[in-house]
Amino acid sequence: MNRAALSGLIQKKQSFLCVGLDSDLEKIPGHLPKNSEGIVAFNKAIIDATLPYAVAFKLNIAFYEAMGAEGWNALEQTIKLIPKKEALIIADAKRGDIGNTANQYAKAFFEQLNCDAITVNPYMGVDSISPFLLYKEKWTIVLGLTSNSGANDVELLKLQDGRHVFESTIETMAKHGSDENLMFVVGATKSEYFKKVRAVAPRNFLLVPGVGAQGGSLADLKELFTDDIGLLVNSSRKIIYASSNQDFAQAAAQQAKNLQQSMREML
Amino acid sequence: MNRAALSGLIQKKQSFLCVGLDSDLEKIPGHLPKNSEGIVAFNKAIIDATLPYAVAFKLNIAFYEAMGAEGWNALEQTIKLIPKKEALIIADAKRGDIGNTANQYAKAFFEQLNCDAITVNPYMGVDSISPFLLYKEKWTIVLGLTSNSGANDVELLKLQDGRHVFESTIETMAKHGSDENLMFVVGATKSEYFKKVRAVAPRNFLLVPGVGAQGGSLADLKELFTDDIGLLVNSSRKIIYASSNQDFAQAAAQQAKNLQQSMREML
Repeated sequence: MNRAALSGLIQKKQSFLCVGLDSDLEKIPGHLPKNSEGIVAFNKAIIDATLPYAVAFKLNIAFYEAMGAEGWNALEQTIKLIPKKEALIIADAKRGDIGNTANQYAKAFFEQLNCDAITVNPYMGVDSISPFLLYKEKWTIVLGLTSNSGANDVELLKLQDGRHVFESTIETMAKHGSDENLMFVVGATKSEYFKKVRAVAPRNFLLVPGVGAQGGSLADLKELFTDDIGLLVNSSRKIIYASSNQDFAQAAAQQAKNLQQSMREML
Repeated sequence: MNRAALSGLIQKKQSFLCVGLDSDLEKIPGHLPKNSEGIVAFNKAIIDATLPYAVAFKLNIAFYEAMGAEGWNALEQTIKLIPKKEALIIADAKRGDIGNTANQYAKAFFEQLNCDAITVNPYMGVDSISPFLLYKEKWTIVLGLTSNSGANDVELLKLQDGRHVFESTIETMAKHGSDENLMFVVGATKSEYFKKVRAVAPRNFLLVPGVGAQGGSLADLKELFTDDIGLLVNSSRKIIYASSNQDFAQAAAQQAKNLQQSMREML
């Protein structure tokens, strides 16, 4: 999916919501089977219920890997349940490796699983990102400044030129891609640094976790808007685990709708 | 496997060699089937042939994921082929995520796959590492200073206190683990920084890629030795693809033996 198509979805749905499918065997409603079939049934209900309000779905790969080969089947099946033109499909894999290994990851997520986007980790540098950028109409989403407290340990260290590690990292990576194939992860909890993010990534889409549960405010994000919004705001548990009963899909739809309505007012 | 057992293997085999199973459908000998069964047959022959010379096997997870669910089966089968007391089993996954996601990755690699060690990426900070450290007799191997050219982009940036990002990163992570559960990845090509690595990780085991093909020298690594060696030197393609014919396992054994003999002389 290219930028024009993604921006088109945002306009059409009046939403920049990404629903995170962190689907956990321990947390899905008790009436569903506690296996990979239960996960797929859960995902199908959540996808169908929230699709009107969401422009993207983010699959947290760890939760599928924890089930082994069966989990990979659940991942494949879930991806097929998402209508390709109706939502961007993000593999939240946070991969990061070089050369042929990065090629293999790109092949796994862009070809084998046919995702539109993958999250990657920039610690090893440009050569761990560039193999993903070779794919047309696919997105590489690089960790920039994350929403967790551990962001202080590396991302927020101060460099000799007075900038933070995350600023230099985003700037370096941005040079090797374009705003048509490169996004950055920026935590909603880090609003004091939003200006610095946009200084080095003026028009890249940003994937923003941390609204709600982690304390980030939706209203603050307006500062990050580009001409075509340029944001995807992720919400996972608050939506998918809104209810643990038979009505879980309706409850998820209601939560997604609430967020979408707040977003519509911002647009 | 705890440190005493790993050090015992190094003494017994007079080797600190780790064989990297970057097993690629495109590169395994032509007489093997080009599917996951071919990969498992290839791995079995390589493991059996090199086990006398290797104290660890490192599985490059990307190569298995590129085959989807079938690849995860091949990964599970391969791990079962490695005698648990005869070699450390490393999942080269370079994962890095927080909280419950990190828990899921730990569960996938330490419980589901029963690996002894996993490589992780420190960019997101301590909270992306700590869930792995909760497992007893398992190893968390954090990226420190990698052997690729991209190391300049983030790891080798200079901080305000005059140190490099990798030094601060290793120091911060080392505080949260011990030399019984925490290793670091340090590229053999980065010998000019070896003293700085040992200044912040005096006794942690180091996993060292980059000897041979990438230009790192085995002899230089002596500077990194601890009282009980404290090193694992990885070689992947040079060993596993030493021959593309029927004799591939013998050729791999010969390459592994050559490295082991050089190592024995250093001990």
